[in-house]
Amino acid sequence: MKTLLTLQYNGKNFFGWQSQPNKRTVQTELEIALFKLFKKNISIRGASRTDTGVSALCQLAVFDFDFNIPIKKLPFAINSFLPEDIVVINAIFVPKNFHPQYSVYKKTYQYKIYNNTFKNPLFYDYCEFVYKPLNLEKMQEACKYLIGEHDFKSFCASGCSASTTIRTIFDLSIYKNLDDIIIIEISGNGFLYNMVRIIAGTLINVGLEKYPPHYLSQILSQKNRALAGKTASAKGLVLHKIYYNI
Amino acid sequence: MKTLLTLQYNGKNFFGWQSQPNKRTVQTELEIALFKLFKKNISIRGASRTDTGVSALCQLAVFDFDFNIPIKKLPFAINSFLPEDIVVINAIFVPKNFHPQYSVYKKTYQYKIYNNTFKNPLFYDYCEFVYKPLNLEKMQEACKYLIGEHDFKSFCASGCSASTTIRTIFDLSIYKNLDDIIIIEISGNGFLYNMVRIIAGTLINVGLEKYPPHYLSQILSQKNRALAGKTASAKGLVLHKIYYNI
Repeated sequence: MKTLLTLQYNGKNFFGWQSQPNKRTVQTELEIALFKLFKKNISIRGASRTDTGVSALCQLAVFDFDFNIPIKKLPFAINSFLPEDIVVINAIFVPKNFHPQYSVYKKTYQYKIYNNTFKNPLFYDYCEFVYKPLNLEKMQEACKYLIGEHDFKSFCASGCSASTTIRTIFDLSIYKNLDDIIIIEISGNGFLYNMVRIIAGTLINVGLEKYPPHYLSQILSQKNRALAGKTASAKGLVLHKIYYNI
Repeated sequence: MKTLLTLQYNGKNFFGWQSQPNKRTVQTELEIALFKLFKKNISIRGASRTDTGVSALCQLAVFDFDFNIPIKKLPFAINSFLPEDIVVINAIFVPKNFHPQYSVYKKTYQYKIYNNTFKNPLFYDYCEFVYKPLNLEKMQEACKYLIGEHDFKSFCASGCSASTTIRTIFDLSIYKNLDDIIIIEISGNGFLYNMVRIIAGTLINVGLEKYPPHYLSQILSQKNRALAGKTASAKGLVLHKIYYNI
């Protein structure tokens, strides 16, 4: 049976999602847990290859193996073999043609920024820190230039192997939570390598008034990575939600 | 000059605020930083003796020493000698008669609870975890029995050395933040040893429907620690704000 797992992880101590030799990755830890549970090598496929240090409140992983455990109990069974920084929160059967990349039509990421004169020792691990004041209104104004279907070549790290750099951003909003943390929330049909972190770095430049908001449309049209802001740090990024068709 | 520092710390790797032999405490780290900065032993006095594992977004500390650094630059100077999990965010001069306990008239704590079937690897470090569903409305109803001036003997850990167990709770409210974390926010003129954590543990029992909300008034009137809930874990607790008169 093809099985779809939903999982959460704290990216701090992982070299990202994808298995790599001699590195602690989420995929490897999950495959080890499945091996311990089923006494069999089972390979899994994830929906998003999150980078080193990036966390997830909703990652999808698919594997193909027939087992006897009731599906509702499967998360508890796998969790008993997982380290504390990965948790399976759901398991369902999906049709054979379900694909963790092609069946996904929308992903939402959150990027968190702590903007204050002093670093905050409680938020340090999961927020980018900016000590100069950010102009939130200008950042919000800049968002509108990125929403829609565009060629995001300027927002793609070198080494990006995507066949096309055209993507659609459905929503992009910026707000503060109760702890005064600035949250950039972005939803799209897919994201290029480092795209969300480059967008975050570019919006930070707008907030710092290095770029006027309308400069975003120029960055897009020039298709030149050098024009966009720096790649904001991985620790501020969380894969927040994945929407799929079955 | 008498100087008042406001500081923040992540309690995870501290044996609480107060200096103890051979233990890493916030007070000790701060005194070491002042020694490195001023080349002199300076003893500090804090406003709240937070326990092992408890964090602070606002702790006060006072010391008496004449220095040449401009007061606005003092936080930066001290921070350069502090570890990453303590940050001084403000420094002001206060009159000689200022006292970090007696000049304080209100303290606010927040207690965070993650209530879900599965633990969350991102919120694990700073939330109490409750896997059975909590009835938030009943918890909110129970709050009203604790607001006001009461003898909180039932909510005081054994070993409490306070001369009186009478305290006033000004505000007590319960709400969810954007991450669906339940926050108990409590303000009072002072708190007994473990009082906030015992109140949190007791409100959790109300949420689990082990206690009806009105049972809180019985717990108060019986003055018996055994009737209240267990002491909720330290990691959920943050000293959030301290209000003082100068």
